[in-house]
Amino acid sequence: MFYYLNVIGTMAFAVSASLTAMNKKLDPFGVFVIAFATSVGGGTLRDVLIGYTPVGWMRDLNVVYFIIAGFALAVIFRKKLDKLRVSLFLFDTIGLGVFTLIGIERGIATGLHPVICVALGTMTACFGGVIRDILCNEIPVIFRKEIYATLCIVGGIIFFTIRNNFDINQDLLYILVSAIIIVLRLLAVRYKWYLAPLDRY
Amino acid sequence: MFYYLNVIGTMAFAVSASLTAMNKKLDPFGVFVIAFATSVGGGTLRDVLIGYTPVGWMRDLNVVYFIIAGFALAVIFRKKLDKLRVSLFLFDTIGLGVFTLIGIERGIATGLHPVICVALGTMTACFGGVIRDILCNEIPVIFRKEIYATLCIVGGIIFFTIRNNFDINQDLLYILVSAIIIVLRLLAVRYKWYLAPLDRY
Amino acid sequence: MFYYLNVIGTMAFAVSASLTAMNKKLDPFGVFVIAFATSVGGGTLRDVLIGYTPVGWMRDLNVVYFIIAGFALAVIFRKKLDKLRVSLFLFDTIGLGVFTLIGIERGIATGLHPVICVALGTMTACFGGVIRDILCNEIPVIFRKEIYATLCIVGGIIFFTIRNNFDINQDLLYILVSAIIIVLRLLAVRYKWYLAPLDRY
Repeated sequence: MFYYLNVIGTMAFAVSASLTAMNKKLDPFGVFVIAFATSVGGGTLRDVLIGYTPVGWMRDLNVVYFIIAGFALAVIFRKKLDKLRVSLFLFDTIGLGVFTLIGIERGIATGLHPVICVALGTMTACFGGVIRDILCNEIPVIFRKEIYATLCIVGGIIFFTIRNNFDINQDLLYILVSAIIIVLRLLAVRYKWYLAPLDRY
Repeated sequence: MFYYLNVIGTMAFAVSASLTAMNKKLDPFGVFVIAFATSVGGGTLRDVLIGYTPVGWMRDLNVVYFIIAGFALAVIFRKKLDKLRVSLFLFDTIGLGVFTLIGIERGIATGLHPVICVALGTMTACFGGVIRDILCNEIPVIFRKEIYATLCIVGGIIFFTIRNNFDINQDLLYILVSAIIIVLRLLAVRYKWYLAPLDRY
Repeated sequence: MFYYLNVIGTMAFAVSASLTAMNKKLDPFGVFVIAFATSVGGGTLRDVLIGYTPVGWMRDLNVVYFIIAGFALAVIFRKKLDKLRVSLFLFDTIGLGVFTLIGIERGIATGLHPVICVALGTMTACFGGVIRDILCNEIPVIFRKEIYATLCIVGGIIFFTIRNNFDINQDLLYILVSAIIIVLRLLAVRYKWYLAPLDRY
């Protein structure tokens, strides 16, 4: 089931990144690269930093095909997708929760410290968007407005707190913490939680 | 012979990137870094993603020396190079064709799927320019105007189509497909082929 | 002792990057990521390029804690730090010298050619700042104004000149060359040394 959630998240990232890139007037190749980099960028950076190479999407071609599908859907339905904003937001949020746990899992499998694992989870979920914004020549949105990444960190802390104190089934724990991150994100957007910039003067 | 074409391509990339950076009023160190990153950036990203480390230019110092030579030539003749625009464009196009095949070859040597090999070829040829544009704080030109990268993908598909269906000498195949990419690029510029952005409204 | 200098440099990089990010009105998460990327970005790029993975800060958590401390100090004292500009500049300069030597050492330990080792030293000291500027959507400052990176290259050349010609204690050599880079940087700022852009017309 987790694998299917991963697929949903990957496609949602590809679709929403394609829309961003089309709004920026990029050509189809540019749109595809942005979609690809946003979907797998976080996980790719993670794999490179821990030395898990060739990186993930080179080993599981399904990832590539799902991104191509997400890109194609976004291009074909580009004039109608604004009506699906709510669904897209939901899928994107599922991606956020699932990607965080995938990053944490990869960190544990590599034998890294929990602090690093939480960082890897956050990176997996958020850095695709950072790469997208850099390629589109903007200051990354997650550094300015949203508490997106903070929720991944909170989720990661909850994960290790539960894991170290309770005897819980691994799969159940992944689903549970993903769900917590997803709910927190929905609450955050609903109630406009954000981190205020720090005034210097 | 392929090795010499590679050298011509590397130097051409270094020269044209140096000109771009000088036009941006960067200081000589900045110009050199841009020249270096443009020339080897695509191949370096490829090597990092597939885990071929230390990356290529650390193993073959000749690459470093040719880039230094290209940088030096660009600096010395910086007031006269606009007259050589056509030659530079030709060398740059040779680089495009040769780098694509080098990337594909590295992918095959790593045992990766043809789809990934084509992606690696395109990355090798095109991502140096993406890195250059990011360092110069612009939206990468290949995402906006030129069909540059699309030609690499087409070349890669032709490569595997021939390879899987004909019993052809490996070296000959490399030269042939490089030549096809080079000719396509010349035609593309001559006849102003481009990919139109996708209107959303 | 070298380890303590490294810590001072890391914290100084974290503090000054945090100030830059706060001036850009980023939120606390954005400030932290910029602080982190600036402090370890150069060394991380180096480790990835030479294949030393998981990268350094994943193996030595102290680095992570010192960056968190530098970030926290910068946030808490954000309204008073402008008064400490001179001290901060000094610590930053210590970081420049020490990081260069750490990068050179890592290159030697990997068995790379002196030219590559000098490049790795420069990368370790300077590319955190390049990553910071890219994340903040600016053309990297070291490409435009300061001779920052050139001093690392000069220091690296001095290092190998002494190492190949004199029978000197390794630790002493590290301290000596770090000190030379630090003094050169102080002189450079004091006497406004810079590299002029190259006019093309």
